[in-house]
Amino acid sequence: MYEKTIEPVAIMHTGFGEKFGIPRQSGLVPEAAGQIIFEPKYRNPDALRGIEEFTHLWIIWGFSENRVEKFTPLVTPPRLGGREKRGVFATRSPFRPNGMGLSSVRLDKVEYKSSKGPIIHVSGVDMLDGTPIYDIKPYLAYADSHPKASDGFAAEHRWDTVHVIWRDEALKSCMDEDTRITVEHILAQDPRAAYNKTKDYIYGMRYGRFDIRFVADSHAGTIEIVDVVECVDGYHKVK
Amino acid sequence: MYEKTIEPVAIMHTGFGEKFGIPRQSGLVPEAAGQIIFEPKYRNPDALRGIEEFTHLWIIWGFSENRVEKFTPLVTPPRLGGREKRGVFATRSPFRPNGMGLSSVRLDKVEYKSSKGPIIHVSGVDMLDGTPIYDIKPYLAYADSHPKASDGFAAEHRWDTVHVIWRDEALKSCMDEDTRITVEHILAQDPRAAYNKTKDYIYGMRYGRFDIRFVADSHAGTIEIVDVVECVDGYHKVK
Repeated sequence: MYEKTIEPVAIMHTGFGEKFGIPRQSGLVPEAAGQIIFEPKYRNPDALRGIEEFTHLWIIWGFSENRVEKFTPLVTPPRLGGREKRGVFATRSPFRPNGMGLSSVRLDKVEYKSSKGPIIHVSGVDMLDGTPIYDIKPYLAYADSHPKASDGFAAEHRWDTVHVIWRDEALKSCMDEDTRITVEHILAQDPRAAYNKTKDYIYGMRYGRFDIRFVADSHAGTIEIVDVVECVDGYHKVK
Repeated sequence: MYEKTIEPVAIMHTGFGEKFGIPRQSGLVPEAAGQIIFEPKYRNPDALRGIEEFTHLWIIWGFSENRVEKFTPLVTPPRLGGREKRGVFATRSPFRPNGMGLSSVRLDKVEYKSSKGPIIHVSGVDMLDGTPIYDIKPYLAYADSHPKASDGFAAEHRWDTVHVIWRDEALKSCMDEDTRITVEHILAQDPRAAYNKTKDYIYGMRYGRFDIRFVADSHAGTIEIVDVVECVDGYHKVK
């Protein structure tokens, strides 16, 4: 009963070409940009009439890379260091029935003169490049904002951001200033899994056309970007 | 591509047996209660472990009574008096692709000792009785609350509540105090369509087991409840 088939109305395009590095919730990296490109059937500027009255939007989307074959009631939130389990409905885990994600993003502008129909430019995204979008709704502060709501287990580690340092060589990359700030804020969230914080390991993260290498010092609370390589002909990690 | 089939994880039970009277957004009538009863496959207390750490939940649900056969990019928000059109993605209209609703509700308690598996008691609902629920997520104030977000066209009529009066006869009904308060707050939102505010018309609204009759005086800004009938053997409107 009530089983139904849904289809994407749009696809979200972001700089996140892989799961590693994606902010754990929307809004955590305000600069992280996304472009919502509608599917041909929905490429109609009328469908967006008045949307610029709003500063924020809700996106209902699909976790396209996390397929759940069988219902598993318990998950392991990264916040809890991979040590404790919580019920899937008490978390935002991607491993959930129906695989649906929910994000509030900032609406920056709508671009109308594109061959791909109207494009909504947003920021504060936490979605993989190519994520299917099933619905877009205006954010209504009077109904959706509950500043005093509890953050549950997420409250504990809320401010655990780290200090990001650029090694001189990394700074010499041809990364533009906006991307540099975005990458810095992504890394400040410490994208490493709580159970995998090896001191001298060189981590690699992709953002947009860039392959970013970094080392972390958990004790000092720092992440140092050691190398940045631009991938002109598609993406390939530095060795 | 990315078309997918989703199935309800639970069904929302509310006092709203018909569309008329349902608050226009979640939270507008804080007392309006709902019980989330899981589908047999998902009746597992583990799936809720830790959920009581949160004060609010997100519900992703389906507009079960509004089927959209063909994509219509423009809708007529009730707020705008049925006079102006807006793009469907600039509204919370039920007539939308994929027919998905989004509500934030208050989490009151979880009832574990039920023959129907764990039941989540919530309030501030804006859903029809029997609404299919596709996902439940904790509300995270740090990520979801944007108190300064704009309300767009919804801002204009934000405070248009009316004064509710009980006629003596109506007060004599066997409605309990909690239900009475809830009904009063539902009517204070003025459930009438903006384009259908006839002065001497007797409107009927169902809430729970009750059939509530009221008249409205738009000039005075009042709604008067003239009659309440309890429907013991199922619902039937008074003549």
